[in-house]
Amino acid sequence: MNFEKRIYQLREVMAKKEVTLSVIMNFENQYYFSGFKAITYSRPIVLFVGEQNTKLVVPSLEENHAKDKSIADQLLVYYETPLHQTQANSYVELFEEVISTYPESSRVGVEFSALPFELARRLRDKGYELVSLDEEIIQMRAIKEEEEIEQIIESGKLVSLSLTASLAHAAPNITEMELDQFGNTALFLEVAKNHPNSTLDYFVMSPSGIERTNMPHVFSNTRALGTNDIIIHSRQVGVNGYRAECERTFFVGKPTIEQEEAFKLAQEAQQAALDFIRVGVTAAEVNEVALNVFKDANVEQYVRHRTGHGIGIGLHEEPSLKYSNDLVLQENMVFCVEPGLYIPGIGGFRHSDTVILTKQGTQLVTHYPSKLEDLIL
Amino acid sequence: MNFEKRIYQLREVMAKKEVTLSVIMNFENQYYFSGFKAITYSRPIVLFVGEQNTKLVVPSLEENHAKDKSIADQLLVYYETPLHQTQANSYVELFEEVISTYPESSRVGVEFSALPFELARRLRDKGYELVSLDEEIIQMRAIKEEEEIEQIIESGKLVSLSLTASLAHAAPNITEMELDQFGNTALFLEVAKNHPNSTLDYFVMSPSGIERTNMPHVFSNTRALGTNDIIIHSRQVGVNGYRAECERTFFVGKPTIEQEEAFKLAQEAQQAALDFIRVGVTAAEVNEVALNVFKDANVEQYVRHRTGHGIGIGLHEEPSLKYSNDLVLQENMVFCVEPGLYIPGIGGFRHSDTVILTKQGTQLVTHYPSKLEDLIL
Repeated sequence: MNFEKRIYQLREVMAKKEVTLSVIMNFENQYYFSGFKAITYSRPIVLFVGEQNTKLVVPSLEENHAKDKSIADQLLVYYETPLHQTQANSYVELFEEVISTYPESSRVGVEFSALPFELARRLRDKGYELVSLDEEIIQMRAIKEEEEIEQIIESGKLVSLSLTASLAHAAPNITEMELDQFGNTALFLEVAKNHPNSTLDYFVMSPSGIERTNMPHVFSNTRALGTNDIIIHSRQVGVNGYRAECERTFFVGKPTIEQEEAFKLAQEAQQAALDFIRVGVTAAEVNEVALNVFKDANVEQYVRHRTGHGIGIGLHEEPSLKYSNDLVLQENMVFCVEPGLYIPGIGGFRHSDTVILTKQGTQLVTHYPSKLEDLIL
Repeated sequence: MNFEKRIYQLREVMAKKEVTLSVIMNFENQYYFSGFKAITYSRPIVLFVGEQNTKLVVPSLEENHAKDKSIADQLLVYYETPLHQTQANSYVELFEEVISTYPESSRVGVEFSALPFELARRLRDKGYELVSLDEEIIQMRAIKEEEEIEQIIESGKLVSLSLTASLAHAAPNITEMELDQFGNTALFLEVAKNHPNSTLDYFVMSPSGIERTNMPHVFSNTRALGTNDIIIHSRQVGVNGYRAECERTFFVGKPTIEQEEAFKLAQEAQQAALDFIRVGVTAAEVNEVALNVFKDANVEQYVRHRTGHGIGIGLHEEPSLKYSNDLVLQENMVFCVEPGLYIPGIGGFRHSDTVILTKQGTQLVTHYPSKLEDLIL
């Protein structure tokens, strides 16, 4: 990944905003700028980007890990063992040490959405002015580098493979969690075999039945699939931190006529958005194309979320495919397109696929049939 | 879970601190007080606890999920679809709506460690004084209710079962990720079969080799185990949100003499702490008992972290088993005890087990042999 370029871009933003120090607290942004991702942040981690250097504050048990992964110019380590009592014992101590070298009335760049009040007040107590970097970082992350796109394409293959493995085992009496696990196994074995030195994140859920598919986000549980049942199987995979997503609504046994109709509308809405999406249109326009399919069928009232979202390091990133977003779509943005219908008493219906915007059009990175005849299992 | 009691306790703290409204942003605390846990917080969620009622701000796609799980008196929903343009379109709108009903100079309870600056400044702009609730909530969560302990015991069984399944497959040429996956499969199938209507979280890592075991926290990757190799296998499982942890250092093939010695010291240190721990001693004393084993063998300089930590909804909770923590341990606290040694060129050595403090002593909730002869696989 081109960390140097990212830091350079951030410094350009800082220069424009007359900011001399940035404090990065959002975990995903820390990973984006430094290459370092921790397993847990219960011991806080802070990334400082100054005009000349970068510093990463880490707990002692992350020292080797951070040396291995982070591109920060300097590691500042805090300790929790009595032998190191004379060194820094908390991240706050190191935080104060770094910020205190800046003159009063400095302008400090922060993420308003992520900086905890605990640190904000310490910056303010020093007389610094806090300047938001949220939007600029969101915009940087929204346009993917070549290497990021390569990773997303790899993740797309892994999503398709594991979703296929799960759906191959769909049958009455299988629980949601077992369904997930078939895909997990396929995923782990594939990564272990063919992705040397990679890390793996994933998320999977399979809400089933009319009531649970009406909840777009819900943890898989031990509900067993019925003999005529509806399921939304959703999977995200992130290889080396970059994610792709695929979701399919499917049936075991027979759908009702109402379910067939709703399914076809959701599938059609997704296809319409996928066909429409290209460089130069706005996020709102893509959203509208999908919504129009629902409007024409008088089911717009069953829509509970936007048509889609960007994806990358985060599960959900900008740009948001939402009615109020006039952002013009650009080359190397990556989206999940997933219009959904949620009809009480009938079920939830949503497919999702991940696409990369290219100069020529779009490149689909997730693959599984989306038509009804392929999804009655 | 006894949500009513928790809210009651929080209101007692609020009364003492003359706070009339609390804003809970930490995801774990939201779950603790409301019963609601989201799959992602990329659409923000806010819990308000007033003197008379509780309100939960959720995005529209979480509405049904929150109705199902949350005990909040009132759900405030924000929408992202044009049909709902006249209703709230962002969490900030609802946030402002709730806080604006309070008179200027109100005292508002917040988590300094979790409240984002974005919301802190909105509260301050209204002239409110922000009062920290961090410590009080940490203390509440540190003492577990009976039902929480029951869940942790169940999670302990599942950790033991899945760790056993992973270690049963340890062999040269197996990758770290494959090792993890054997345990995952056992875990999913067991939960699917015997834990109806449960949710499942888990974390697993298996750093292997001298260099990687020297990193206490590192993601499993595709490194294959060697013919004479050292591995730290770590697993946490949370059934219905409550976690237990077990970790074992083990060998495939033959350890070196130095590895044997270090292993024995780490195992002995853990056993000494487990034997010592009881109601009435301090966290620092437990830490010291383990450290003394290392001190006596002149290896204290290889210690990179505290002896252990509380566990529950969080991976790491208070009380921290740390040299500087004079907290007196009480009945119904739950800990992971995991002193470790990290010796460059030799390897990392750490076992972890989860124990509940009872009036009579301790109850171990994770089970796997810990002696060297049982861990040469």
